[in-house]
Amino acid sequence: MSSSTGTTEGPAPDPAEAPLDGRRGMIVTAAAHEIARHGIAGLRVEKVAAAAGVSVSLLYYHFGDRAGLVRAAFQHASERAPSTALRLATDEGTGYAALERALLGELSEDPEVREAAVVWGEVCARAAFDPEYGPVVASVTEGWASTVAEAIARGVRDGSIRDDADPGAVAQVLITLVDGLCVRWLAGAIPLEHARALLRATVRDKLTPRA
Amino acid sequence: MSSSTGTTEGPAPDPAEAPLDGRRGMIVTAAAHEIARHGIAGLRVEKVAAAAGVSVSLLYYHFGDRAGLVRAAFQHASERAPSTALRLATDEGTGYAALERALLGELSEDPEVREAAVVWGEVCARAAFDPEYGPVVASVTEGWASTVAEAIARGVRDGSIRDDADPGAVAQVLITLVDGLCVRWLAGAIPLEHARALLRATVRDKLTPRA
Repeated sequence: MSSSTGTTEGPAPDPAEAPLDGRRGMIVTAAAHEIARHGIAGLRVEKVAAAAGVSVSLLYYHFGDRAGLVRAAFQHASERAPSTALRLATDEGTGYAALERALLGELSEDPEVREAAVVWGEVCARAAFDPEYGPVVASVTEGWASTVAEAIARGVRDGSIRDDADPGAVAQVLITLVDGLCVRWLAGAIPLEHARALLRATVRDKLTPRA
Repeated sequence: MSSSTGTTEGPAPDPAEAPLDGRRGMIVTAAAHEIARHGIAGLRVEKVAAAAGVSVSLLYYHFGDRAGLVRAAFQHASERAPSTALRLATDEGTGYAALERALLGELSEDPEVREAAVVWGEVCARAAFDPEYGPVVASVTEGWASTVAEAIARGVRDGSIRDDADPGAVAQVLITLVDGLCVRWLAGAIPLEHARALLRATVRDKLTPRA
């Protein structure tokens, strides 16, 4: 694993590890925007470069190839996801409340959240066809699961989450349910409020301390 | 809603309702196969027609357009899914056992099940971009949820499923979890056995009668 100190001497740093600053950040933001509108198949590298105000060759310098750009956009989407806020230590409210708020936050009409959800779902779906995306989906998902598992463990410690919950397994189920609900919601197959109610009920079922 | 008696006098019957017999069935099977290999963006109508041994014009006669063919392949995938077997009345085993078997059956390396899962996931994901697929995703998902809810109600009646379960809500959560696990599994982000274990534990949590 390379360092994440943001050195720039080498070409094509791993997009999953380099910081998103300056033009690199603008390219990734533009790529996520394009993927959210047209999908990966409709992603035009020239259009992304133009939107970010850079040359196509600079884009390739940063991301290596088209798949590298998609992977960086996926990573970017995950970093903007509401659950990511769980990583920041906070003393506001119980572990249960923080977790519920973060997971429900993934199901929101906020344009930024919606865009991140579309990009996330698109790259996950594409990974069934294209092995170039499997590893980043696996590693980012694993990071998300760990973040949620830590939040569950925190709730167990503060007494807001029941103590027989297996944080790792429950975290996997909850984030997978969030993903599945996002797919249905974005497909227009389930109203957003219904999706949120199903998620809220499942969090309660799985985590509320037993009476 | 048109009838499902399979009349053939009109052009382009609704693919979701016409029976899959003869050349029509061969076209849909070939389309599902192509979608599973290359995704919707990679679907070549000419290739599907050639694989089914029909002309492109006959294909369009049956399905109207490319999206109609995709919708029929989606419907076809749902009909071959293991959960569909729940619709057939059976007296073998408890409602709980039948439900668990059917849901776990969706997570299987059986090539036919895998192909159906890829087609299912692909069309659901595409519906986030293309409104032509939203309605069929909504209606087929609704049918799947109803089938699972009926199986839960049967288990409540035979005492194998706890009587405070809300069949409709639990069915939605379980099928959404199945979908989310399929996406992760097909992406290579979670081993199949791990996905099955998470599903089995959730079915148990949600449905086992309380001691």
